[in-house]
Amino acid sequence: MNKKEFAVIGLGRFGGSICKELSEEGMQVLAIDKDEDRVNGYKNIASHAVILDSTDEDALKEIGISNFEHVIVAIGENIQASILTTVILKDLGVRKVTVKAQNDYHEKILTKIGADKIVHPERDMGKRLAHNFISSNILDYLELSDDHSIAEVKAGMKMVGKSLIDLDIRARYGCNVVAIKQGRDINVSPRADALLKEDDVLIVIGADIDLSRFEKHLVIDD
Amino acid sequence: MNKKEFAVIGLGRFGGSICKELSEEGMQVLAIDKDEDRVNGYKNIASHAVILDSTDEDALKEIGISNFEHVIVAIGENIQASILTTVILKDLGVRKVTVKAQNDYHEKILTKIGADKIVHPERDMGKRLAHNFISSNILDYLELSDDHSIAEVKAGMKMVGKSLIDLDIRARYGCNVVAIKQGRDINVSPRADALLKEDDVLIVIGADIDLSRFEKHLVIDD
Ligand SMILES: Nc1ncnc2c1ncn2[C@@H]1O[C@H](COP(=O)(O)OP(=O)(O)OP(=O)(O)O)[C@@H](O)[C@H]1O
Ligand SMILES: Nc1ncnc2c1ncn2[C@@H]1O[C@H](COP(=O)(O)OP(=O)(O)OP(=O)(O)O)[C@@H](O)[C@H]1O
Ligand SMILES: [Ca+2]
Ligand SMILES: [Ca+2]
Ligand SMILES: [Ca+2]
Ligand SMILES: [Ca+2]
Repeated sequence: MNKKEFAVIGLGRFGGSICKELSEEGMQVLAIDKDEDRVNGYKNIASHAVILDSTDEDALKEIGISNFEHVIVAIGENIQASILTTVILKDLGVRKVTVKAQNDYHEKILTKIGADKIVHPERDMGKRLAHNFISSNILDYLELSDDHSIAEVKAGMKMVGKSLIDLDIRARYGCNVVAIKQGRDINVSPRADALLKEDDVLIVIGADIDLSRFEKHLVIDD
Repeated sequence: MNKKEFAVIGLGRFGGSICKELSEEGMQVLAIDKDEDRVNGYKNIASHAVILDSTDEDALKEIGISNFEHVIVAIGENIQASILTTVILKDLGVRKVTVKAQNDYHEKILTKIGADKIVHPERDMGKRLAHNFISSNILDYLELSDDHSIAEVKAGMKMVGKSLIDLDIRARYGCNVVAIKQGRDINVSPRADALLKEDDVLIVIGADIDLSRFEKHLVIDD
């Protein structure tokens, strides 16, 4: 695989983290911010780091932004700058532009002007963590769509000593147990008759509404 | 199950999202912000919503904050307010306090003053998304453990028109396809003989090393 060329515009917490992770994975990354201090913080992390205002079309042309395969716009508060930057990038022919949205209105506009991918990091992480707060037995939550998720749940008191057959999760809750974690081992083809032990972690997939019932009945201890 | 009592201080994108998701899951949530407009936006979402400055100890006492089981501090920019709020909450005896940190220094201080859980939503989401950016066919990645993950992958050119039987993913790569997304529908019991279509999304579970082989051979287009 060729080393892909990325540019990240806006080096706040979100943009900065993307920049760092892509660099650590060996990708070529150009880090961009209008703030000099921010840019200096990424001089030793990204392949290149430049100070520029991304609402300045000429400045973006000058650094050859259209040669980048994927540009990530991680400008926060200033929604206007985020929108203008996105318009310019698509106008200059950048193939893939991912933009952080602040709210639903922002997202609608970004969709209309051709943003290829729109992300809501704070919102998505809030959603994900909320499940974790509800029960200490719900370890993680991954949304697959608006109404389907994967949940990572600790075998509660109501499950220990029972098998998947006993619990009949698929028939009773419409969810599928796709794997069981025991310590550091993950079994992706769990036996239906094996007895669950304390600290076993089930990876369960299903509709949110079904997962929710499953959690209420079997996961959350009274 | 008793309805757990949560309070969320700071109704930005992150705090607001937690508030909404907890409420949707049927939890009792008190929404708090010093900004009146923000609070009004949560009147119909949370069980209660109040305007107050959380650095004001008396105001927190007055609403009986120590009766809450879990308080989430989602104040952003104003690090001092976040720290002072956390100190007051622990001082008043709140059992569980989760705090959003802005950076590593902030986290260090929060740990010292007794925050029970510290989260970095922007940073964690940036990390997670960076992996998706590396291949545009890899839509999402959930780490289950150090060496097992779930990947959400778009059916690449090498998969379209073939069935799961044809591709023989389990035998050849040791990974399991646990669901297939087609637009907004998710099929958690995909038929082994159905032909994959462009834009189908496969949810695949397996060891990282196996997923990686699977991606190189079948997901990443040449
Ligand atoms: N026009 C612009 N050109 C270049 N950089 C910009 C521009 N506008 C804003 N930025 C930079 O984007 C970065 C992120 O913006 P901001 O801090 O407002 O977002 P945020 O949503 O609070 O970020 P996060 O939550 O990820 O920390 C800042 O470092 C800012 O200097
Ligand atoms: N002392 C305080 N008491 C109550 N609310 C506060 C206090 N300080 C800040 N807030 C509120 O916290 C909320 C979040 O703060 P801010 O917008 O600075 O964070 P942020 O990190 O940019 O948020 P996000 O990225 O989640 O949108 C704001 O609505 C603000 O009014
Ligand atoms: Ca933020
Ligand atoms: Ca949902
Ligand atoms: Ca902010
Ligand atoms: Ca890993």
